[in-house]
Amino acid sequence: MIENRKEEHIKIAENENVVSEHNFWDDIRIVHRAIPEVDFNDIDTGVKFLGKQFNYPILISSMTGGTETAKIINKNLAMTAEHFKIGMGVGSMRVAVKNKNTADTFSVINDYKIPAKFANIGAPQLVRQDSDSLSDNDIEYIYNLINADFLIVHFNFLQEMVQPEGDRNSKGVIKRLKDIAGSYNVIAKETGSGFSKEDALSLLDAGVKAIDVGGLGGTSFAAIEYYRAQKANDEIKMHTGKAFWNWGIPSPASIKYCSLGEPVIGSGGLRNGLDLAKAIMFGATLGGFARELLKDANTSFDDVKRQMEMIINDLKITMMLTSSRNIDELKHARYITLEPLRSWLEVYK
Amino acid sequence: MIENRKEEHIKIAENENVVSEHNFWDDIRIVHRAIPEVDFNDIDTGVKFLGKQFNYPILISSMTGGTETAKIINKNLAMTAEHFKIGMGVGSMRVAVKNKNTADTFSVINDYKIPAKFANIGAPQLVRQDSDSLSDNDIEYIYNLINADFLIVHFNFLQEMVQPEGDRNSKGVIKRLKDIAGSYNVIAKETGSGFSKEDALSLLDAGVKAIDVGGLGGTSFAAIEYYRAQKANDEIKMHTGKAFWNWGIPSPASIKYCSLGEPVIGSGGLRNGLDLAKAIMFGATLGGFARELLKDANTSFDDVKRQMEMIINDLKITMMLTSSRNIDELKHARYITLEPLRSWLEVYK
Amino acid sequence: MIENRKEEHIKIAENENVVSEHNFWDDIRIVHRAIPEVDFNDIDTGVKFLGKQFNYPILISSMTGGTETAKIINKNLAMTAEHFKIGMGVGSMRVAVKNKNTADTFSVINDYKIPAKFANIGAPQLVRQDSDSLSDNDIEYIYNLINADFLIVHFNFLQEMVQPEGDRNSKGVIKRLKDIAGSYNVIAKETGSGFSKEDALSLLDAGVKAIDVGGLGGTSFAAIEYYRAQKANDEIKMHTGKAFWNWGIPSPASIKYCSLGEPVIGSGGLRNGLDLAKAIMFGATLGGFARELLKDANTSFDDVKRQMEMIINDLKITMMLTSSRNIDELKHARYITLEPLRSWLEVYK
Amino acid sequence: MIENRKEEHIKIAENENVVSEHNFWDDIRIVHRAIPEVDFNDIDTGVKFLGKQFNYPILISSMTGGTETAKIINKNLAMTAEHFKIGMGVGSMRVAVKNKNTADTFSVINDYKIPAKFANIGAPQLVRQDSDSLSDNDIEYIYNLINADFLIVHFNFLQEMVQPEGDRNSKGVIKRLKDIAGSYNVIAKETGSGFSKEDALSLLDAGVKAIDVGGLGGTSFAAIEYYRAQKANDEIKMHTGKAFWNWGIPSPASIKYCSLGEPVIGSGGLRNGLDLAKAIMFGATLGGFARELLKDANTSFDDVKRQMEMIINDLKITMMLTSSRNIDELKHARYITLEPLRSWLEVYK
Ligand SMILES: Cc1cc2nc3c(=O)[nH]c(=O)nc-3n(C[C@H](O)[C@H](O)[C@H](O)COP(=O)(O)O)c2cc1C
Ligand SMILES: Cc1cc2nc3c(=O)[nH]c(=O)nc-3n(C[C@H](O)[C@H](O)[C@H](O)COP(=O)(O)O)c2cc1C
Ligand SMILES: Cc1cc2nc3c(=O)[nH]c(=O)nc-3n(C[C@H](O)[C@H](O)[C@H](O)COP(=O)(O)O)c2cc1C
Ligand SMILES: Cc1cc2nc3c(=O)[nH]c(=O)nc-3n(C[C@H](O)[C@H](O)[C@H](O)COP(=O)(O)O)c2cc1C
Repeated sequence: MIENRKEEHIKIAENENVVSEHNFWDDIRIVHRAIPEVDFNDIDTGVKFLGKQFNYPILISSMTGGTETAKIINKNLAMTAEHFKIGMGVGSMRVAVKNKNTADTFSVINDYKIPAKFANIGAPQLVRQDSDSLSDNDIEYIYNLINADFLIVHFNFLQEMVQPEGDRNSKGVIKRLKDIAGSYNVIAKETGSGFSKEDALSLLDAGVKAIDVGGLGGTSFAAIEYYRAQKANDEIKMHTGKAFWNWGIPSPASIKYCSLGEPVIGSGGLRNGLDLAKAIMFGATLGGFARELLKDANTSFDDVKRQMEMIINDLKITMMLTSSRNIDELKHARYITLEPLRSWLEVYK
Repeated sequence: MIENRKEEHIKIAENENVVSEHNFWDDIRIVHRAIPEVDFNDIDTGVKFLGKQFNYPILISSMTGGTETAKIINKNLAMTAEHFKIGMGVGSMRVAVKNKNTADTFSVINDYKIPAKFANIGAPQLVRQDSDSLSDNDIEYIYNLINADFLIVHFNFLQEMVQPEGDRNSKGVIKRLKDIAGSYNVIAKETGSGFSKEDALSLLDAGVKAIDVGGLGGTSFAAIEYYRAQKANDEIKMHTGKAFWNWGIPSPASIKYCSLGEPVIGSGGLRNGLDLAKAIMFGATLGGFARELLKDANTSFDDVKRQMEMIINDLKITMMLTSSRNIDELKHARYITLEPLRSWLEVYK
Repeated sequence: MIENRKEEHIKIAENENVVSEHNFWDDIRIVHRAIPEVDFNDIDTGVKFLGKQFNYPILISSMTGGTETAKIINKNLAMTAEHFKIGMGVGSMRVAVKNKNTADTFSVINDYKIPAKFANIGAPQLVRQDSDSLSDNDIEYIYNLINADFLIVHFNFLQEMVQPEGDRNSKGVIKRLKDIAGSYNVIAKETGSGFSKEDALSLLDAGVKAIDVGGLGGTSFAAIEYYRAQKANDEIKMHTGKAFWNWGIPSPASIKYCSLGEPVIGSGGLRNGLDLAKAIMFGATLGGFARELLKDANTSFDDVKRQMEMIINDLKITMMLTSSRNIDELKHARYITLEPLRSWLEVYK
Repeated sequence: MIENRKEEHIKIAENENVVSEHNFWDDIRIVHRAIPEVDFNDIDTGVKFLGKQFNYPILISSMTGGTETAKIINKNLAMTAEHFKIGMGVGSMRVAVKNKNTADTFSVINDYKIPAKFANIGAPQLVRQDSDSLSDNDIEYIYNLINADFLIVHFNFLQEMVQPEGDRNSKGVIKRLKDIAGSYNVIAKETGSGFSKEDALSLLDAGVKAIDVGGLGGTSFAAIEYYRAQKANDEIKMHTGKAFWNWGIPSPASIKYCSLGEPVIGSGGLRNGLDLAKAIMFGATLGGFARELLKDANTSFDDVKRQMEMIINDLKITMMLTSSRNIDELKHARYITLEPLRSWLEVYK
């Protein structure tokens, strides 16, 4: 059952060590400006993302849906998105097609005024697998269910490879993506392994409007599946989970690879507003947070709110201390890059 | 109350681990000269700093004032400055304006013959904040209170950002600084995050006579505020303290950035005379010590004196072993630079 | 007795920490392709190695023979080789010449249909030592004993140097090798220290058909001999074992050095299918596994089979996630190289 | 008393951790040659050092004299030097001048046939200090006492700086050295901090016949003095010992700096024959061992002999595995250099 799996994912992500060995945001160090000549109260964190106005360059990344727990989480996240006027995604919505009475676990966010809502489907479901693919009607249903502004198509083939129930065909994805990109504002998103430059080029060629890098450094789905396999006593899947635990392109490197003209969302491993600022300095328009918000979202709106306040405070302090009155100026702050991230930045040189 | 806060700062700096993760002086290694052709007894450690003669290239960095403890510390430090004929700064003197009966906690140093006394005010207090700014009269009062030779304006916007009572406006600082620099020998100083080259350029443009880099590697005010927040059970401030614990430009890098013609004081993380020698080899005229002297200064003159003797002995040994008869020759000693400091030296290339 | 020594080697390799300090496969990171456009089920892992068709680019490396345990191991490995249609080597066959009634510990593999069988002799036995060398007849006997397709000549002079019974003459090896290479398909193989470029050039000049690098990073025979010495209370040999524990050329570097036109087998430290994929990306035609299979081979066919399934699954996932439909495409996947491996790649520049 | 101090040095060097933090020989990795085409029994380890024939490129470094323990040590080392036909130095001989009845603690080595004996005096004693300097007659006495072939003048100004009784004048050393170099075959030697290129140039200019680098990586005299200070409860000297514990030029780097035409002895931190081989590959004619032999020399000839056999065995294995039939060929073996040593090799570029 998809629902059970999703529930398990959340539990594991909340309670186990599911992050990759190294967080590459730590390889970036920002050059301090001792004389900001900025009034903290004047700092403008607003950004425009594909025509939508956000108060902060933050996206609450797609995480959940389909279960009662998910509904609570989505509600608390939606209240947060409304409160801070930032964007919000929901988890993969296939389950709402298969099982219509889970619809409200997603549509619960419609009660809140959110600057931009991101529907979510998986790239593997764009093409025929053992299980059926999503039809155009399915997608239309999903999109309307949350009155979405954008349709995120997430690429998670590592996860598909590692999990027992995985969809293992990726042929034809780009072709179908191209079709869909004609009808919706599609955003391509990875889920922890990042996009290469080759990927980014074919995505833009297919007509996506933005890329959410979802790179290596934070939540590792190989890790999550390792814990599921452990519980199931499945030694083979445990092996795979371990072997691919640190697979992927570091988030900051992927931002650079994907910066080809269209907006980029920097995500994967963001822990605070400092990491967020680094994402923006590397070229992202928004930074996406998933796991960092999960536990609090499962507790109460107040808790997520406080978490978000900390993130925003970090961001504003970083802006202050880099003499950046607004997000555009932040993009021009100086930084240095250390190993191993530095080596990743040379791949396409 | 400022007084309580200052008292707390001292206690925490003395008893907790308040230093940044990495001390960048360790990234510098000095090339030994086995055949010095120098007589240790001939080594001349004297320097001239903006017209003032010091017996050693050492500044006792600005630390305290305003409380009874501070008075003891300042007295012991003043005795040390007199004994060794080196410069000495006092802590931020705003409190003496607000609360005139704290004046003697600063002026206590007037009883000693110190080659150069450094008054101290904060850059944030140069401009209007929620609390009032310092007037020209206030500054004149402060300056005269210790018969100062120099007026240090310290830049500590990281600290202002992290502490609850922080002054959060930095707009107009340079303009006011320019005015003051017309009337006093102003020295700009950071307090643990260093100055960038952009900062240095605008400081020199504003007419400061010297720059005290106060870089990353030693005392971290984010760390100090973390412990204060912990005591106050303030989770948000604890988060900020942790997030910015290692924020800043490494001291040696900042010396390089600031070496633009006017004298530079190398400070931030100096632990012994070896670090001091490295500061000078990197281009500083003086090296500044704060935390390393604090605990002893709080105990007795004899203890600070012994500490200072160790520092001086280290310095002289380093001079001997680099074949440097005087400070000018020390500036030409060879060294190597390792990562991560090396990467910082490439920022402006 | 050779037999006892071999038995000991196996026991130690199974139970002690016999690997080198650092595994250099970890210094290679693969660039993920989020959009493979590949169907997992279409992935073709087949390769041709010197005219022989393998289902997977895998060689079960030469390990054992001569004892009852060895016979069981060889049988289980042969079943595995048959099952997966991959190549298989046996351990050094000199013992079969000296002691004819050990013949069946090798020939047991003849009961299985294996795409390519690799006979095995040691380079030191090609020339006169204290003990006699192998005659042309001996080699013919050995070759026929397992109906071999290839004759591996292994170079293990480090081991010979460290072990008490070592053959210490290597003069004339190349000359004799040239003779033999006229009559058999000879493959030169190291056993944990890798080949340099100079080595590779003289091997190809001598007429070998392929090179199996057997580089540093996995099983260390210095380590194995250390444990034997420990048991024998031989302090001098323990010293030597420790001193040379990490001696050798990292496997990936050796692949690069040996890639001079003829096929290369990448081996030494392969733990899983990810390492295998890296070997292929570095230029190898096959990857060789030894120690990783040993313990399971000593247990049961089912255990080796499961181990091999994991390796293959890793490989196919890596192919999927680098958008490689076949082994040729895998060779063109992008990667980065970190220190210390990176420095090794510069030796011949 | 010099005698007590020497006794203490030995005890500490034998029982405490007196080595520098990092051994830079570990930053050199040798390129293995799998096909040596060498017979181990043919390997010729002989070298000529300034006209003297050694069976191995090894010097037993200057260590001791002046006490009963020293006499035993010197005797055992002399037996070792005779047995292996290698060179041997004794410790600083000033004590024999001051206290004539210690003469036999040095001259004990005259009972053995040693290819080359190295007398030893300290550079600080070449010039006037608080204590008297050595006269020409003193030196003549010292030289004849052991029928020396070479006169080592050791440079140990770090030690002089750290120890309480230190001679602190180095002015005039080169001038006096020049005089002495007219009468004796003088070798300049450091004692753990290495020579810079500037040093080497002035040494050669003064007419020394060879340089013994005595670099950083092994015994640290700052460390030894730290332990002495600890015993004496001298906090200031403890501070100095700690601060300069890792002061100096890494031995391999110093070999490179000093390779200017005359023979170089590579020493400082050699632990085994692998380190010795690296010293030679870096350009040294001999490798010098001190601390590694000390404890065994204090026990029995058999123990030093066994230790030396291990060193020689390592050396010969390294020669075998780099395809070096003799020391000249070893000099051309390939290697790589890692950080931090690599950075030291760039100092004079
Ligand atoms: C419990 C959980 C469920 C997730 N579900 C989805 C999903 O359904 N769709 C999607 O695009 N990403 C999903 N993600 C991936 C996140 O959006 C994000 O890309 C990834 O976790 C990396 O970000 P992080 O390091 O901030 O967690 C999920 C992540 C978590 C932790
Ligand atoms: C307890 C304490 C109080 C300080 N107060 C001041 C101050 O009032 N004004 C100032 O310019 N710097 C102040 N500083 C900063 C120091 O002068 C110095 O720049 C900083 O501590 C880094 O040097 P260190 O690593 O040697 O401690 C203070 C430092 C400490 C530890
Ligand atoms: C117990 C054992 C016995 C071995 N015997 C042989 C042998 O007889 N001939 C040979 O060419 N290699 C032999 N090897 C070396 C392996 O084939 C291989 O080159 C080496 O172990 C490195 O690979 P690994 O790290 O995967 O173990 C042996 C290895 C082991 C562990
Ligand atoms: C106990 C001891 C005494 C030493 N005495 C002398 C000495 O008198 N003269 C000298 O030139 N070097 C002396 N040395 C220095 C050594 O010769 C050598 O340069 C140094 O220890 C570094 O080599 P190592 O790391 O192999 O010990 C002494 C070393 C030790 C450990």
